[in-house]
Amino acid sequence: MVNASRVLNNLDELRALTADEHGAQRLAWSPVWLRARAWFEEKLKSLPVEHHYDAAGNHWVTLQGVSPKALLVGSHLDSVPNGGWLDGCLGVLAALEVLTHFSERYDGRPPITIKLVDFADEEGARFGRSLFGSSAFAGKATIEADRNRTDREGTTLEVALAACGVAIDRVGDAVAEQKDLAAYLELHIEQGPILEAQGKPLGVVLGTKGVERWAITFHGQEAHSGSTPMAVRRDALAAAAKLALEIRPIAMKHPQAVATMGSVKTFPGIVTAVVGRCETTLDIRDLDAEVLAQMLGEARAASERFAAEERCTVEWSKVWSIEPIPFHLRLIELCEEAVVETVGVTETLPSGPLHDAAEVARAGIPTVMMFVQSLNGLSHNSAEDTKREHLEQAVSAFASLAEKTVGWITG
Amino acid sequence: MVNASRVLNNLDELRALTADEHGAQRLAWSPVWLRARAWFEEKLKSLPVEHHYDAAGNHWVTLQGVSPKALLVGSHLDSVPNGGWLDGCLGVLAALEVLTHFSERYDGRPPITIKLVDFADEEGARFGRSLFGSSAFAGKATIEADRNRTDREGTTLEVALAACGVAIDRVGDAVAEQKDLAAYLELHIEQGPILEAQGKPLGVVLGTKGVERWAITFHGQEAHSGSTPMAVRRDALAAAAKLALEIRPIAMKHPQAVATMGSVKTFPGIVTAVVGRCETTLDIRDLDAEVLAQMLGEARAASERFAAEERCTVEWSKVWSIEPIPFHLRLIELCEEAVVETVGVTETLPSGPLHDAAEVARAGIPTVMMFVQSLNGLSHNSAEDTKREHLEQAVSAFASLAEKTVGWITG
Repeated sequence: MVNASRVLNNLDELRALTADEHGAQRLAWSPVWLRARAWFEEKLKSLPVEHHYDAAGNHWVTLQGVSPKALLVGSHLDSVPNGGWLDGCLGVLAALEVLTHFSERYDGRPPITIKLVDFADEEGARFGRSLFGSSAFAGKATIEADRNRTDREGTTLEVALAACGVAIDRVGDAVAEQKDLAAYLELHIEQGPILEAQGKPLGVVLGTKGVERWAITFHGQEAHSGSTPMAVRRDALAAAAKLALEIRPIAMKHPQAVATMGSVKTFPGIVTAVVGRCETTLDIRDLDAEVLAQMLGEARAASERFAAEERCTVEWSKVWSIEPIPFHLRLIELCEEAVVETVGVTETLPSGPLHDAAEVARAGIPTVMMFVQSLNGLSHNSAEDTKREHLEQAVSAFASLAEKTVGWITG
Repeated sequence: MVNASRVLNNLDELRALTADEHGAQRLAWSPVWLRARAWFEEKLKSLPVEHHYDAAGNHWVTLQGVSPKALLVGSHLDSVPNGGWLDGCLGVLAALEVLTHFSERYDGRPPITIKLVDFADEEGARFGRSLFGSSAFAGKATIEADRNRTDREGTTLEVALAACGVAIDRVGDAVAEQKDLAAYLELHIEQGPILEAQGKPLGVVLGTKGVERWAITFHGQEAHSGSTPMAVRRDALAAAAKLALEIRPIAMKHPQAVATMGSVKTFPGIVTAVVGRCETTLDIRDLDAEVLAQMLGEARAASERFAAEERCTVEWSKVWSIEPIPFHLRLIELCEEAVVETVGVTETLPSGPLHDAAEVARAGIPTVMMFVQSLNGLSHNSAEDTKREHLEQAVSAFASLAEKTVGWITG
């Protein structure tokens, strides 16, 4: 029998072991994270499983089945600094419960192999490189770009990895773990307000939104705020302000698109000077690549129009992008069945935040995620929370999804 | 005879002595500034004058006349870092030429006393307190607020003053210098584009605009840029962007008003988060106190409306303000006469930037300023420039204004 309270007890234990008064401190490649992984290894001792770490630091646990074909379940144990008690570790501990459940039910030898993964450094909080372990697994490692990334203390990623036994030049070898994987399932908190607003405990994730992330700089003319008449100004802030407002109607034409100007910097940035240069950032996301491209084109055209209106110039520089990654249609259906059977209602939604599941799906492995409601849409801080009742329902529905997926793989 | 080329030669000499490849470096209370003052003292040796420094570090030069009633002329020798070759020192060196002219014309004893002043630390560039010397002279010293101001190296204003022989507790004694002053005249570069746009070399300043300077902070809700739907956001940047645009029509209702948002800071200020807090600054100026109050009220009401629209809150905190300071009507007329007689055309305009003349006028001394055209409206950097022909016309017209003012004082 699936035992949801065992998952909750484990979450409480892990919190006691790895959080302080500011929240979870399981920063990847840190002593606290290694402590969490050692604690997790202890939990495996009573199970008939093999486990090992791959070349990228991902932790793999295998319950060998009759067939080598495998169902993979998992998430990540690392957290942001001052993080929450659920992000990532809920998925790993629910996966452990799935593994335990299949071991108990099939007396240690299920019809297909069940694997659990704890991906390394999903958050990228210390070195700015998220999805580190899962992208290596997916064959998307970016070793040369990552080698010299540094944390605040100046430690390079290469040195931090080596201290944990990971050789950066070899992380690409993690692709070997793809062998025999037939499906991937991940349970995660929503980290947004949608399920709570709809009064629904659980949701089915359609995929992860594509992201276009750009730095946009407007160049005008710095000028004295007292001596420069309004009519002759070339105010870079005015052009940026127009864009900050215009990205909203551009996004709101599409039901699930988002567009965010998260940072504005003004130069010289003093009370007595018209802004000569304004640096902004734009982050746009949607599940549909065409919608994403349309929004990007409209934002760009708008920025050029506003620059011209203000007699400024504008410069776009790409920060990062990823294409939309839709999840597997049959697994989405199975997930909906599991959710409806468990709580009576369901909801489908895309994920705005990225997840390891996106990298697994990019590797061509059929993938789906299940979301459980977040309270107040909060995440990445110590206020992150979910009702215990909803967590229990999530574990049950996730185990049910795993059963259905095994049936789909073998059938 | 007034010798304008002597003024230009002195400006060139001073530039060679106190500028580097980045511009003028006559930062108040610095060795370069003291070097400029020592150089200026040398220029006095051939004149029948007394000179001394007052309790606030202002430098006073007196050509004693038949009457103790005095005409005061002057400006400031200090500059911003990487400043221009004209701002402040043009006024001091033109004043020196006026002093020389009266000495030569009246054989060392003019009908009334002629005084020159080089005010200390007009720019406030090092400690953020502009008009330091002239406000002490005017009885507006703010000793307790200024004592612990620090520069970038952590030196306090009190210590920097002491190193130049100025005891901060005594700066108020500079008011004694007001005795017998009947009028004050100051020549300055415009630092704006108006005279150049109109093709006029010289202008008559109606007064200095009043200034209201505020810090305005919008509070919304920080949220994940991927997981937070557009419709539920409380985006502090959106409210600030609306205000950045709205202050422009508010100012442009009035022919000479200006309104500037010079600084915007976003928090957390990262590409992946909706802005939870947005700190902005507002600087509004006009020569008419009623217009200033109306603009301030409209900006405030607009900010509250925008905060409500974006489900944010807004907070206003006063940084600094000064009332409009109109110059003396009869002296404005005399200045117009002098300008028209010298260059054939004139223009009246308010000054957006503040000047020592504003403090002198606040002390109740009849005051007027003359502006000479700036090229490209630039100032406070090494590109600051004015045609030599216009500088020569300015010196002539300023000397003529001094003659007319002596006539007005004695008549």
